[in-house]
Amino acid sequence: MSKPTIGLTGLAVMGQNLARNIARNGFAIAVHNRTVETTHKFIAEHGHEGAFVGCDDLRSFVEAIEKPRTIMMMVKAGKPVDDVIEGLKPYLAKGDLLIDGGNSFFKDTARRAAQLESEGFLYIGTGVSGGEEGALNGPAIMPGGKREAYERVAPILTKMAAQVDGTPCCAYIGEGAAGHYVKMVHNGIEYADMQLIAEAYDLLKSAVGLSNEQIGETFAQWNEGELGSYLIEITAQIFRTRDPETGGYLVDAVLDRAGQKGTGKWTSDSALELGVPVTAITEAVFARCLSAMKAQRVAASKVLMGPSSSFGGSQKDWIGAVRDALYASKVVAYAQGFDLMRVADAEYGWALKPGEISTIWRGGCIIRAVFLNRIKEAYDADSSLSNLLLAPFFRDVIGRTQANWRRVVSAAIQSGVPVPAFSAALAYYDGYRRERLPANLLQAQRDLFGAHTYERVDKPGVYHSQWG
Amino acid sequence: MSKPTIGLTGLAVMGQNLARNIARNGFAIAVHNRTVETTHKFIAEHGHEGAFVGCDDLRSFVEAIEKPRTIMMMVKAGKPVDDVIEGLKPYLAKGDLLIDGGNSFFKDTARRAAQLESEGFLYIGTGVSGGEEGALNGPAIMPGGKREAYERVAPILTKMAAQVDGTPCCAYIGEGAAGHYVKMVHNGIEYADMQLIAEAYDLLKSAVGLSNEQIGETFAQWNEGELGSYLIEITAQIFRTRDPETGGYLVDAVLDRAGQKGTGKWTSDSALELGVPVTAITEAVFARCLSAMKAQRVAASKVLMGPSSSFGGSQKDWIGAVRDALYASKVVAYAQGFDLMRVADAEYGWALKPGEISTIWRGGCIIRAVFLNRIKEAYDADSSLSNLLLAPFFRDVIGRTQANWRRVVSAAIQSGVPVPAFSAALAYYDGYRRERLPANLLQAQRDLFGAHTYERVDKPGVYHSQWG
Repeated sequence: MSKPTIGLTGLAVMGQNLARNIARNGFAIAVHNRTVETTHKFIAEHGHEGAFVGCDDLRSFVEAIEKPRTIMMMVKAGKPVDDVIEGLKPYLAKGDLLIDGGNSFFKDTARRAAQLESEGFLYIGTGVSGGEEGALNGPAIMPGGKREAYERVAPILTKMAAQVDGTPCCAYIGEGAAGHYVKMVHNGIEYADMQLIAEAYDLLKSAVGLSNEQIGETFAQWNEGELGSYLIEITAQIFRTRDPETGGYLVDAVLDRAGQKGTGKWTSDSALELGVPVTAITEAVFARCLSAMKAQRVAASKVLMGPSSSFGGSQKDWIGAVRDALYASKVVAYAQGFDLMRVADAEYGWALKPGEISTIWRGGCIIRAVFLNRIKEAYDADSSLSNLLLAPFFRDVIGRTQANWRRVVSAAIQSGVPVPAFSAALAYYDGYRRERLPANLLQAQRDLFGAHTYERVDKPGVYHSQWG
Repeated sequence: MSKPTIGLTGLAVMGQNLARNIARNGFAIAVHNRTVETTHKFIAEHGHEGAFVGCDDLRSFVEAIEKPRTIMMMVKAGKPVDDVIEGLKPYLAKGDLLIDGGNSFFKDTARRAAQLESEGFLYIGTGVSGGEEGALNGPAIMPGGKREAYERVAPILTKMAAQVDGTPCCAYIGEGAAGHYVKMVHNGIEYADMQLIAEAYDLLKSAVGLSNEQIGETFAQWNEGELGSYLIEITAQIFRTRDPETGGYLVDAVLDRAGQKGTGKWTSDSALELGVPVTAITEAVFARCLSAMKAQRVAASKVLMGPSSSFGGSQKDWIGAVRDALYASKVVAYAQGFDLMRVADAEYGWALKPGEISTIWRGGCIIRAVFLNRIKEAYDADSSLSNLLLAPFFRDVIGRTQANWRRVVSAAIQSGVPVPAFSAALAYYDGYRRERLPANLLQAQRDLFGAHTYERVDKPGVYHSQWG
């Protein structure tokens, strides 16, 4: 057996599954974990699946790999990544390539890449999306770093990635932190997508009055059409799942307190820093925060009044309207995410290719969807598109769905059903298409109380007035 | 003339006005500016107003002040503050007190306070709100630092502050960064307040069809009632202001592209970091970002369609409804801001007194309002109130206004008028009073695709299931 050219350290579930994926694709691979027993157990269970070399310490791990080495780190984001890098360094040779496949904060990746490249190593920060199952059978991979680093590892990455219509869900993203940035935005969009689906569920249940079975059927039907996507598919699956403990539906037994792991928040942070109105994603992040305030909500529910939640009218009619509202809101959430990447790209100079990014996201990852083909087509038709909403396809989707979108959101508001992401998306659409917003009043106020000055509509320059 | 015990460096408009305010209240004060000419001009113009000692360099400035010295810095937030501190240090004696009266980022203030206190100095980071006019005639002052530092300067601060019903708009906030944190939240609330007023203006103009004159009269009337506040008052003033260039209304000549100076964004950043759903403030920040995308909006307005913006019906009726929507949304924006301070306080241990903070904000500052007396009363009645919405007064305000609130927001949505902050506030209200949110679906999805586990409603523990 030839010496492996790649190694992977960090054998938690994602690391294990990526290692197995690499091995099953015919590449020999050295594996290592801080706790030695985990490595032994992994080899015992999966050693037969491919050419694994189990290593007990970092030194023998590095030495087991053929130079120039490629080493993938699958450890928790933050300090653990720095610790592993420091642990590996003494044994590395110039030209060796380190790959961080975790959900690292993009500014950490930029710092690490600059440092390691200055020391003669290569560095890739790559997004890997698809959860456990994707890691094993084909994730979406978003690698950022020097192009020569990518070229070296491309044969492995493109083979282990998900494939859609013969195209791997992996392509070079750009230098430095580009890969982790794009993965961060992917996760931000995922937050929005999930929240929008949750709002649709809430409406179907609380306002339209569907049973869990009907809700499951509705999502299964939606999955057959333009909304077809992994998240809609698993939502249908969830509503079919029984609770072995109670015999009822398992979804009803799940506590309505959602956790978050940082990437959604980072997307909003970056949007605020770059001044990009990414409102649907941010409302999704805040919706999780509000969900976590369970005790307060229970107390408030006994004090704060509101209207009856039922929409009345034809269930069938409302189901179609909710579908349209979900679709239109989803278009806005993706438009905001792609707009954030556009502005970040101008700021950081990565030369991102939005069409290629949407191609990568078609398979393997959590937000994979039919829909991403339409995004790819929009950027193929106009690579300098300033906003997805302006692409004819999406303009027409919203043209077709907006009456129902408005009807559902206003009915929700009249019925007291919270739809923070639906309504943020709609407010963005109506603001974005406004030649004139009321921000002239803000500027007048700021000039009045703080002499901040203002610009005029009819000529250039900066002005200050005595008001009133 | 006795040697001053206080000095002020940084004679931009805010610094000049604060120095004049201090002097006119009978305190001798040394003044300094990096550009010497500014100091000379200031003394020439305002020297007769009080006991000023103009100083040309930092050394003579420090030496002009009686020990233990109090030195107020009024320079741009960020590196300039660090530069001034480093410039002053060689001439300071142990026990001298530095005060940063600018809009510093609260984490910078925490760092500077810790550093200077460890070196034997005292440090106060203080919010000063009220714009130019408030700085001169009485601002709201929010000082944070060691209590002994506050006690030393309290006679000056409480005298120069605005006074409401005989109470100064200045009180000790807490240690370290507490003062700048509270000022940051003040500004965040100010962003929301201004955006809500802008949305009300847009509705009155675009949907109700009022003229500028009628809009000005409407705000003037609102200012007589529960909405009475500085921002409503100046809004009325703005709509009475003519444009000398065109003869029309000046507000119509102002470009609808709003700037921002950081504190709104910082409030949203902190909310994201602490997991507090501060949605109305964040939508206000993003609304400014969207307003800045003027060229894109102009292009989009020609491509993206929407409904006719007119509400129809009785103007008088709609004016009252918009007022109610503004009032209810404003209650939520303040509730979110106070909630953020509550959570930050638990995190940073400042022992904030929300009732006292609302007392300070009653005068001098930009968000001063009748309304803040009601907030003070709510915290006087229950100092551990978890959310303002639960206070009987505010519960009843929303109870009374919510039908109109819902009517206005849903009409806006049906008419294509963007109301991002109105609708975010309403979605928060409806989410906060929800015993059960659809976040159970998010948790089920996360467990299905990422084995993130979930909690159950009926028993403790953490679970993972095979779904579907």
